[in-house]
Amino acid sequence: MVLYSYWRSSASYRVRMALKLKGLDHEIRPVHLVRDGGEQFADDYTALNPQQLVPTLIDGETVITQSMAMLEYLEERHPEPALLPGDHAGRARVRAIAQAIACEIHPLNNLRVLKYLTGTAGLDEDAKLAWYRHWTETGLAAVERMLDNPGTGRFCHGDEPGLADCCLLPQVYNAERFECNIAQLKRIRRICEALGKIPAVVEAMPENQPDAA
Amino acid sequence: MVLYSYWRSSASYRVRMALKLKGLDHEIRPVHLVRDGGEQFADDYTALNPQQLVPTLIDGETVITQSMAMLEYLEERHPEPALLPGDHAGRARVRAIAQAIACEIHPLNNLRVLKYLTGTAGLDEDAKLAWYRHWTETGLAAVERMLDNPGTGRFCHGDEPGLADCCLLPQVYNAERFECNIAQLKRIRRICEALGKIPAVVEAMPENQPDAA
Repeated sequence: MVLYSYWRSSASYRVRMALKLKGLDHEIRPVHLVRDGGEQFADDYTALNPQQLVPTLIDGETVITQSMAMLEYLEERHPEPALLPGDHAGRARVRAIAQAIACEIHPLNNLRVLKYLTGTAGLDEDAKLAWYRHWTETGLAAVERMLDNPGTGRFCHGDEPGLADCCLLPQVYNAERFECNIAQLKRIRRICEALGKIPAVVEAMPENQPDAA
Repeated sequence: MVLYSYWRSSASYRVRMALKLKGLDHEIRPVHLVRDGGEQFADDYTALNPQQLVPTLIDGETVITQSMAMLEYLEERHPEPALLPGDHAGRARVRAIAQAIACEIHPLNNLRVLKYLTGTAGLDEDAKLAWYRHWTETGLAAVERMLDNPGTGRFCHGDEPGLADCCLLPQVYNAERFECNIAQLKRIRRICEALGKIPAVVEAMPENQPDAA
């Protein structure tokens, strides 16, 4: 498998975590989102990914876009170790936590959205940062409330890392990078600390990528 | 099953479509997002849905938040008629189209986001509308490019309505409501026209909801 990835892209980080947790061989091909006006806009990359976003996953003839579709694909093709629990209610809970991050936090703080805010919308850097922090802080606070549930264990669901954890840790990485105030989110902080002790997770971290600056 | 829904919420509309396409008995409980400052903020609703968003799906003891998690849950619990194809590559394609809408378009045009733009961020109504149209038009144009694929049939994938269609039609409803310019997106328009001829889909439409104004 080949993963087109950018070291600081949290959507790429999700998929890197899943690949590493499942112990699947893969090659990382960096796509630099800033250099030369953004390598994701190049014709050959656009042919793979019409949305011009990272990541893109290639498995033989299959080209997959959208990180959440990749996580589900990896889970179906390579079920062990599982990133989703076996019961319907548990699977729904894990997917809901994952989507609470992937649909309610991350899309608002994408590079192209931040560019629009300071470009077309005319906001200054302070207003952009306030926007970033608002959606990250309120979004992660909602996730913290979702984790106030007997289903939570050492990780988001039970005592093994799963699909929700693959979304949570990258989002918290972003939150720290932009100095969001999340110190009071005790469950999230505890889970991220536990994730950071797993060697496979460490290998997926931004700073350990071939394109890390 | 009980679905807490708001007639104009496109995330609610996705789940209503899936319930109707699968022919599953359910009760709709309206949550008015505007009246009384928003019924989603009431304590009893927040207890069900800590993110204070619609929809919420209740199936016996199981409470599910996040519409994409609900669609996967319904597909796992009630596999027929299927909303996902049987092959891995096809499933990934359908999920990618669905997520391209659920993660890249819809979150940017949520009520709470529009409120922030004209409130805290100080944009005027014209700038808010420009924002709305920008993300809808560029996002649906990217979906149109994804549909330029041999996998597309009468619907987003093949000739039966599926999970991607459950995301597409509600987003196009929003696009039309806000007078976005999507006339040139021929594949999307053709698919939505075909969907509009399915009685189950018609029943799920905003104007046919008990809380439609």
